[in-house]
Amino acid sequence: MGNEGSYVALGLKVWRAQIERAGKLFGGLSSEEVLREIAPGRNRLLYLWGHLTAIHDAMLPLLGLGERLHPEFDVAFVSNPDKSRAGIPSHEQVRRAWNVVHAELWKGFEKMSSSDWVQRHSAVSEEDFAKDASRNRFSILLSRTNHLSYHLGQAVLGLK
Amino acid sequence: MGNEGSYVALGLKVWRAQIERAGKLFGGLSSEEVLREIAPGRNRLLYLWGHLTAIHDAMLPLLGLGERLHPEFDVAFVSNPDKSRAGIPSHEQVRRAWNVVHAELWKGFEKMSSSDWVQRHSAVSEEDFAKDASRNRFSILLSRTNHLSYHLGQAVLGLK
Repeated sequence: MGNEGSYVALGLKVWRAQIERAGKLFGGLSSEEVLREIAPGRNRLLYLWGHLTAIHDAMLPLLGLGERLHPEFDVAFVSNPDKSRAGIPSHEQVRRAWNVVHAELWKGFEKMSSSDWVQRHSAVSEEDFAKDASRNRFSILLSRTNHLSYHLGQAVLGLK
Repeated sequence: MGNEGSYVALGLKVWRAQIERAGKLFGGLSSEEVLREIAPGRNRLLYLWGHLTAIHDAMLPLLGLGERLHPEFDVAFVSNPDKSRAGIPSHEQVRRAWNVVHAELWKGFEKMSSSDWVQRHSAVSEEDFAKDASRNRFSILLSRTNHLSYHLGQAVLGLK
C-alpha cells in the first residue's frame, strides 16, 4: 500500500484553505469595495474575483469533471484586461458563480481516486502525456492553487 | 510500487518554477528599484525578498536539512514590519543569502526520498503528528510554495 492518498489529501487541503480564504476576502466586500483597485491604476477586486472564478471554472473540463458552468466569464475576466469593456458580470453574478463553481469542483474532487489524479488532464494529448507524465491532474491542482495565492496576495492590498 | 515519487516530483517542480521566477524578478532589480514600494505605503521589494529568504531559510531545520544559515534575517524581515528599523541587510546581502539558501535547500531536497516527505516536520511534536499525519514535510513544501506565490503576486506590482 502506497501513500498516494496522503499526497492527494494534502493537495486538496491546501486548495481548500486558499479557497476559503479567498471566499471570505471577496465574499465580505460591499458593492463599492469590490470596485476598488488593488493599487492605483491596477485591477479592481471584482476583476480578480471574476478572473479566479473563470480559471477555476475551466478546471471542470480540464479534470474531466464536466462542462464549464460560466464560459462567458472568459471574455470579461481572462482574455481582456480590466476596465477595457463596458459590460462585465455584476457583483452578484460573480458571487453566485464563485459559489457554484467551487461547490461543483469539490463534488468532483470527492469522487476522484488517487489514481485519477495522476491521469493526464484534458489539455494534453495522449502522445505528449506519454513523453511527460507530470502533465497530470494533480499538477493542475497545484498550479491553480499557486495561481490563486498569487492573486490573493494582490487582493489583500485592495482592502482598506 | 506506488506513485509517491511522482507527487513529490510534482511538488518540487512547482517549487522550483516559482523560485526561478522569483530569482529572475528580484535578481534583475537595480539598487534603486529594490527600494520601490509594491503600492503606495506598502512593503518595499527588498523587504519582500528578504522576507522570502528568511522564511525559506527556516525550512532547513523544519525539514531536518540542517541549521539556519541566516537567522539574523528574522528581526529585519519577519518579526518587524518594513521601514520600522534603521539597519536591515543590504541589497547585496539579501541577494547572496537568497542564492545560498536556495542552493542549500535544493541540495537537501535531492537527498530526500518520498518516504522522508511524509515524515513529521520539526515544528510538530511526535504526539501531535500521531493525531494528524498531514503535518508532514510535504505540507511545508506546498504551503511555502503558496506563500511564495502570494508575495510574487505583490512583487510584480512594484515593477515599472
